[in-house]
Amino acid sequence: MKCSCALRRRGAAPFALLCFASVFAAPMLAQVNYNAGNRMLRPVNYREWIWLSSGYGTAYVPETSGREDPNPLFHNVFVNSAAYRAFLQTGKWPDKTVFVLELRASVEKGSINQRGRFQGEVQHLEVHVKDERRFPNKWAFFSFSPTASAANMIPVTQDCYACHEQHGALDTTFAQFYPTVREVAKRKGTLKPDR
Amino acid sequence: MKCSCALRRRGAAPFALLCFASVFAAPMLAQVNYNAGNRMLRPVNYREWIWLSSGYGTAYVPETSGREDPNPLFHNVFVNSAAYRAFLQTGKWPDKTVFVLELRASVEKGSINQRGRFQGEVQHLEVHVKDERRFPNKWAFFSFSPTASAANMIPVTQDCYACHEQHGALDTTFAQFYPTVREVAKRKGTLKPDR
Repeated sequence: MKCSCALRRRGAAPFALLCFASVFAAPMLAQVNYNAGNRMLRPVNYREWIWLSSGYGTAYVPETSGREDPNPLFHNVFVNSAAYRAFLQTGKWPDKTVFVLELRASVEKGSINQRGRFQGEVQHLEVHVKDERRFPNKWAFFSFSPTASAANMIPVTQDCYACHEQHGALDTTFAQFYPTVREVAKRKGTLKPDR
Repeated sequence: MKCSCALRRRGAAPFALLCFASVFAAPMLAQVNYNAGNRMLRPVNYREWIWLSSGYGTAYVPETSGREDPNPLFHNVFVNSAAYRAFLQTGKWPDKTVFVLELRASVEKGSINQRGRFQGEVQHLEVHVKDERRFPNKWAFFSFSPTASAANMIPVTQDCYACHEQHGALDTTFAQFYPTVREVAKRKGTLKPDR
């Protein structure tokens, strides 16, 4: 299977993903589930988790086509609440941390908006999950099309793993792009400062 | 006092604000407080509320200067969790609803990012709060500079009130710009479809 990491595929900045508890659910319940074939079921209610940040059209490779993307995507990043709560105490992502990256279209004209961009339909979901017993490298990525109800794990040979390993400032996650997470990790001494 | 609504002042799309319960607090506790002089104290922990959407450089007046803003702001909108939970049931914002609009700088170059924008420092906070006993018109706006610990209510003669009244699709809020809120309000029949 080809790597379907939207962040790599689009040349976008690899916002790190994690997964945790809904604000309305018991905080330590698992926030992602798998079917009998080890496919991850599409996360639900992740928009009620802790939102970390949103980027706009971010990419970690320079533009080479000579023209700008006329319709950049928004990259919205969420982490499950129980993982976030543990992180605030330790500066580390606990086991069963889950990030969801939601990619949405950007829209200029609509209602009374005349300039800039607001958020449109979901284009893609990516999940980055830490599960020390399930995955040999602790973390794994999954990628969901807008209508997919389940997804296979992205093979560890794909670029997203190496990129997060090389450039993620905190335990393979892109904590440097999440303002509040970055500050907590700095205080706790867990942020790699050169990333 | 001059209206300090950042959305109006910047000609930005008036993303509506509301206020609710932290995911870690008892859900019906008030999420904003006031001092003896009726000034609102700066909201805390609003980034642990429900995030509704983020816009990028949005504005509801056309560009007339002949050049684009080189550094558009991100507009991040949060609502308190208890209000959101009630909204999911009714399609309406309950009393004590609080929106926070967080305006952040946008940054292109940093870490490995080469294109697009990720989020930088807080530039401003706006609060839109529904409190039927405190405010004659039920809703009120407050505006906080990056370092302000308290703020006066913005007078009801300022543009932000009339604009939210005329263009907000749900009870003076810009529900049309928040994807999940928009869908719930549509289903509940509470969204004004022409806005």
